[in-house]
Amino acid sequence: MKTNPHYQELKREYIFPIIERKLEELKAKNLARAVINLGIGDVALPLAPSIVSAICKAVEEMGQTTKGYAPSEGYLFLRQAIADNEFAHVAIGPEEIFISDGANSDAANIQELFSVHCTVGITDPTYPVYLDTNIMAGRGDKIISIPCTEANRFVPQPPEVHCDFVYLCSPNNPTGVAMTRDDMKMWVDWAKKTGAVLLYDNAYEAFISSPDVPKTIFEIDGAKEVAVEFRSFSKSAGFTGLRCAYTILPKGPLHALWTRRQSTKSNGVAYPIQRGAEAVFSLQGRKETRAQVATYLAQAHTLREGLLQLGYTCAGGVDAPYIWWKTPGGLTSWEFFDRLLTECNLISIPGKGFGPHGEGYVRLSTFTTAEHAQEALRRIKDL
Amino acid sequence: MKTNPHYQELKREYIFPIIERKLEELKAKNLARAVINLGIGDVALPLAPSIVSAICKAVEEMGQTTKGYAPSEGYLFLRQAIADNEFAHVAIGPEEIFISDGANSDAANIQELFSVHCTVGITDPTYPVYLDTNIMAGRGDKIISIPCTEANRFVPQPPEVHCDFVYLCSPNNPTGVAMTRDDMKMWVDWAKKTGAVLLYDNAYEAFISSPDVPKTIFEIDGAKEVAVEFRSFSKSAGFTGLRCAYTILPKGPLHALWTRRQSTKSNGVAYPIQRGAEAVFSLQGRKETRAQVATYLAQAHTLREGLLQLGYTCAGGVDAPYIWWKTPGGLTSWEFFDRLLTECNLISIPGKGFGPHGEGYVRLSTFTTAEHAQEALRRIKDL
Repeated sequence: MKTNPHYQELKREYIFPIIERKLEELKAKNLARAVINLGIGDVALPLAPSIVSAICKAVEEMGQTTKGYAPSEGYLFLRQAIADNEFAHVAIGPEEIFISDGANSDAANIQELFSVHCTVGITDPTYPVYLDTNIMAGRGDKIISIPCTEANRFVPQPPEVHCDFVYLCSPNNPTGVAMTRDDMKMWVDWAKKTGAVLLYDNAYEAFISSPDVPKTIFEIDGAKEVAVEFRSFSKSAGFTGLRCAYTILPKGPLHALWTRRQSTKSNGVAYPIQRGAEAVFSLQGRKETRAQVATYLAQAHTLREGLLQLGYTCAGGVDAPYIWWKTPGGLTSWEFFDRLLTECNLISIPGKGFGPHGEGYVRLSTFTTAEHAQEALRRIKDL
Repeated sequence: MKTNPHYQELKREYIFPIIERKLEELKAKNLARAVINLGIGDVALPLAPSIVSAICKAVEEMGQTTKGYAPSEGYLFLRQAIADNEFAHVAIGPEEIFISDGANSDAANIQELFSVHCTVGITDPTYPVYLDTNIMAGRGDKIISIPCTEANRFVPQPPEVHCDFVYLCSPNNPTGVAMTRDDMKMWVDWAKKTGAVLLYDNAYEAFISSPDVPKTIFEIDGAKEVAVEFRSFSKSAGFTGLRCAYTILPKGPLHALWTRRQSTKSNGVAYPIQRGAEAVFSLQGRKETRAQVATYLAQAHTLREGLLQLGYTCAGGVDAPYIWWKTPGGLTSWEFFDRLLTECNLISIPGKGFGPHGEGYVRLSTFTTAEHAQEALRRIKDL
């Protein structure tokens, strides 16, 4: 059986099963208190009522009238709502918006539009999907590492060598740091000069609080010629368990290829889920989902300020629901993970799971409730 | 921009936009009667009530309690229901079942598990996704064509040359012909002997009526060593607009690779949609969805018998919701398509859209109501 040989090059430590095992071992000891999970970036609040009701209504409609295959690029009602509400100020139209079942899928699939001989810029640390999907596609020896460290305030800098395409995630997962307008302009200018494509993952856009951080890369002059942007309802509206996201490809060669790819490999997203996503833009939906985001950001604030007051060093937590916590006393990220787990009964993610430059850090997700955030801090104080 | 060069090798006539244009031209002439669409294989009946209610209930649950990311392989409740209801007789367990957002996606993505140097057997005519996704992946010069013609009763025969993997769709789209137990045994034996993998698309399983057609390829001895099977809720339970399907990979090298692929590139299927799929296996859900399938099969019977009585030649329509209609008088498939459209106001699909051996045929979908099927026949009588 001639299987894809590149899967064997996937060397990255697969951290979630290890975390799962360590957690099971701990729980077997009959803990006196509940474990607080600040590991995976998943919703901690129920779905907003206006989304629940929009989805139910749409399913009931399907029980009354025939509603078959959705357009592979998504229903116009949703693409129009996105264009009107999110991109009117940068003149992106509905025909440049493609609905999908997740920013994860889109970020994984976009590399198919490029030659296997392309060089690929990937930050270190990184959201692992960018790296793994390029390794699977046979570009494992064409990865240009772009370090994000304390030295550059975790802001990626354009590399000296040529990259055909680069993944940029801002606000960043895992560091929680967002690029400013100037940072982004530097990248767009570099891409135009060198002929690179920027694959800009903006899944955490709803969490942007700083005025000098653009809400979309298309606010930067010339970005439409060089950038693709990924957005998601997962974190902005609690859709992790519903699966709906979208990608903006301005008209051009990649737009044509993506249209062909999606119409061949996908039959679109469920109609009721798209109606649920549309409800996010209603007055009530906006109010409810913004309140959820505000809750998660409040926890980010609580945890960040708490850690700083305790004398720890950390980044993020202002424009993103993640805190990038430097391990104290030179501990490795797994050593500190273990201490947090056994002494605080707190789950984090060891930074090393996001790449070699993640060593010496852990990521805290602030998708949690006020109670849990405060209880987590109380436990950390006793560390 | 070094884009994927293989997209330019996609030569196949893209038929749906052409059909769409012809339809618009016809409608501009103010027809006296409605156009009957027997083109695309999409549902013609509303969603079954028990599915509507299961989805609503699940969404309401998400409004009460937190329900985040689903497991990428699907919830156990659904995988277990599938194993118990569909595969108990062949001892396929839930850990060999992977839930996805469509058999289209799975059929498109499965080729990623193989080396780009593999040779690929594809029937002609074929469901276009098998061919296009292999061309996109760079295997355009490694396709082995397997003709399905009147001479072999539209049953594909194992090729003389080696194929690393082969797509088999049965009951077949577009011909509507199903392989018997003996046909399937011939393929499994050939695959074992030659080291090929069979990618068996069984999306139309619910329509199987003939006793000598197996309900799954795993009823054939040795199939677990050589086959992967695709199933879907789209046609069996009216899920085209909801997106839920599953693929069976018996434990082995492909099972491990698919697990890795899916966990990297997907975050699974929406929780409410999976609850809707689970409801298909409830007593009431079974009753409702089987009645829908029976309706579509009744239309297949009506159309097939009607065409035969009128002296036409056709295949399919017994174990599948498709009829493969030989064009009369040596017309090309587009010529006959045009006559059916303009003289009968009836949409079919020109066979050539499914490959060179589809020339001289049109496909009729029987996803329609009794009224439309009878009206279609009345119009065909006047042809």
